[in-house]
Amino acid sequence: MERLKKEFLPLVEENLTKYIDSHVEFILKVGRYILDAGGKRIRPLLTLGFAKAVGKEDITDVVPLSVALEYLHTASLLHDDVVDGAETRRGKPSANRVFGNETTVLTGDYMYATALYIFSTYGNIEMIKVVSDAVKKMAEGQLLELKKIADFDMTEQEYFQIIDGKTAVLFGACGYVGANSVVGDTEKSHLAYDYGIKIGRAFQIVDDILDYTSTSDKLGKPVCNDIKEGKITYPLIVIREKLSPEEREFFKQLVKKINPTDEEIQKARDIVLSKGGHKLAFEKAKEYVRKAINNLEQFPDNIYCRELKTLANYIVEREV
Amino acid sequence: MERLKKEFLPLVEENLTKYIDSHVEFILKVGRYILDAGGKRIRPLLTLGFAKAVGKEDITDVVPLSVALEYLHTASLLHDDVVDGAETRRGKPSANRVFGNETTVLTGDYMYATALYIFSTYGNIEMIKVVSDAVKKMAEGQLLELKKIADFDMTEQEYFQIIDGKTAVLFGACGYVGANSVVGDTEKSHLAYDYGIKIGRAFQIVDDILDYTSTSDKLGKPVCNDIKEGKITYPLIVIREKLSPEEREFFKQLVKKINPTDEEIQKARDIVLSKGGHKLAFEKAKEYVRKAINNLEQFPDNIYCRELKTLANYIVEREV
Repeated sequence: MERLKKEFLPLVEENLTKYIDSHVEFILKVGRYILDAGGKRIRPLLTLGFAKAVGKEDITDVVPLSVALEYLHTASLLHDDVVDGAETRRGKPSANRVFGNETTVLTGDYMYATALYIFSTYGNIEMIKVVSDAVKKMAEGQLLELKKIADFDMTEQEYFQIIDGKTAVLFGACGYVGANSVVGDTEKSHLAYDYGIKIGRAFQIVDDILDYTSTSDKLGKPVCNDIKEGKITYPLIVIREKLSPEEREFFKQLVKKINPTDEEIQKARDIVLSKGGHKLAFEKAKEYVRKAINNLEQFPDNIYCRELKTLANYIVEREV
Repeated sequence: MERLKKEFLPLVEENLTKYIDSHVEFILKVGRYILDAGGKRIRPLLTLGFAKAVGKEDITDVVPLSVALEYLHTASLLHDDVVDGAETRRGKPSANRVFGNETTVLTGDYMYATALYIFSTYGNIEMIKVVSDAVKKMAEGQLLELKKIADFDMTEQEYFQIIDGKTAVLFGACGYVGANSVVGDTEKSHLAYDYGIKIGRAFQIVDDILDYTSTSDKLGKPVCNDIKEGKITYPLIVIREKLSPEEREFFKQLVKKINPTDEEIQKARDIVLSKGGHKLAFEKAKEYVRKAINNLEQFPDNIYCRELKTLANYIVEREV
C-alpha cells in the first residue's frame, strides 16, 4: 500500500479539486470542505493500482477517472450526512451543519454529475455503465438500510445488499475502471470488479465488528452505534441462531427502542461477544480477503499486483 | 403539440416506471408517487419530436432515452422539494412530506443514476456528455439561486444562469438527444440543443411573469411567491433602472425581509406592473420563442418540425 500511496497520492491530491472549480464559488468551498477533511483516497489508489497492474504505462488519462470515483464517494457522504442528520464527519462539523441541507444536497448532485461528465470525457461507455450501476446500487443499499432498521429478522442477503451499496460496489467500480482503461471490457476487468466487491465487503464487515469491539477513543465515534440505531449487522446476524428464546426476544425489543439504555446496549454487546459474533464475522471478512487475493492470481505478478494484495490484507489487519 | 401527444404520450406513459422497478420496493413506490402525479411529459415529447423531425423511422430505442430525461427532471423535483422544504407538489403533499427527506434524497439519487445507466445502454458517449453537463448546470443554477436570494443587485447574466439550470439546459439536452439519435453530434443536434435552451428560457420567464400577474386560483399556488421569498426575477430586473431612488430602496429592504406584509408585496407588485415589467419580460420571452423557431428553419419541413414550432408558440400563449 505504501508504494501506491507514494507513487499516486501526490498526483491525486494535486488534481482533487480541479474539476469542481465552478463559477458558482460556493461549490468549490463545500467540495473542498469535505475533500480537504481527508480520507485515505483508497478509491483513487485502487483505480490507479489496477491500471498499473494490468500494464498501463502512462496513467495521465486515468487520474481524472480516479478523481471522479472519489467525487462519487464524496457525493454519497454529503447526501449521507443529510440523510443521517449527522453532526460530525471526520472530526469536523458535518457539511450539512456548516452549509445547510440545501447546499449539501445540491453540491452532492453537482459532484455526482461532474463525475459522470469526467467519465464521458476521459472514459468510455462500458465504464459509465458500471459506474452508474454502482451509484444506483449505492442509493438502493442506503434505502434498504433505512427500511430494515429495527427489523431483527433481516436476512443475510439483505445485509450484503446493504454493505455492497455502502462500500463494495464503488470499490468494484474502481477496480473495473482501472483495469478497463488498459484491457477494455474483458475478463480481467470483471475480476478487478469482483476483487473490489470482495475487499469492500471485508472492509464493511470489519467496520461492523469494530462497532462492537472497539472503544470510542480509538474509533473517533461512539461504539455500539449500530445496535443503538436499530441496525442489524454481521456480528449479530452470524450468532442469531445461537440465541436463546429470551435473548432473541430481548434483541427484538431492543432494536425497536428509540432510546435504549446504556445497560441494554452493554447487555447486547456482551451477548454478541460471548457467542463469538465478532470472531465469526472476522472469519467471514478474512474469507473475502482470501477470495479477493485469489482473483489477482490471473494478473501479471508485478509490484502493483503485489501492492493490491497488501491492500486486501491491510483491511483485515486493522485492529479488530 | 396535439400530434406529438397523441403519437408519443401512450408510449412514454407505458414505459415510465419500467426502469425504476427495483428489488427495493420502496423506490418504485416513491418514484410512482411523483411520476403518477402527472406532469405534461414535455421533455420526452421534445426528445421524440426531434428524433422524428430529423428523420428517425423507428423510435423504439429513443423511448428509453426520453424516459431517462423525465427521470432527471423527476429527480431534480425530488431534491428540490427537500431543498425548499416544500409542502405540496402538483396539488398533492410533496414526497418529502410523505416519505421523509432521507428517502426522497436517495430516491432522487437512484433516479439520476438510473437515467445515466439508461444512457449507457441505449445512448452514446456524446449524449452522456451533454446530459451530465446539464445535470451539473441544474445543480449550479439552484445553488446560485439560493445564494442570490435577497440580492437586489443580482445581474441579468446570473438570472439566466439560474433559469438555464432550472429549465433550459434539460430542454436543451432533450433536443440534443433526440436529434443525435439520428444524426450524431452534428450541427443539427446543436441547433436542437439551442432550440431547447431558448424555449426553456421563454418558459421560465413566462412562469416568472405569471407569478406577478396571475391569481392563486389559476396558478394553483400562491402568487408573488418569488418576491416574497426574496427571489429577483425578470419582470423586476427589466424595470430596475426605471425605479426612483425611494422605490429602489423599498425593494432592497423588501427582498431581505423574512416575513414581508401583504401590503408590501402588493406595493411591489403594483410597481412592477405599473412600469410594465410583465410586458417587457413577455417581449423577451417572445424573442426567445422566435429565435427557437428560427433554429428549426434548417430542419426538414415535416409534420414533426411544425409540431415543434407549435410547441414553442404554446409556451408564450399560456395566459399571461
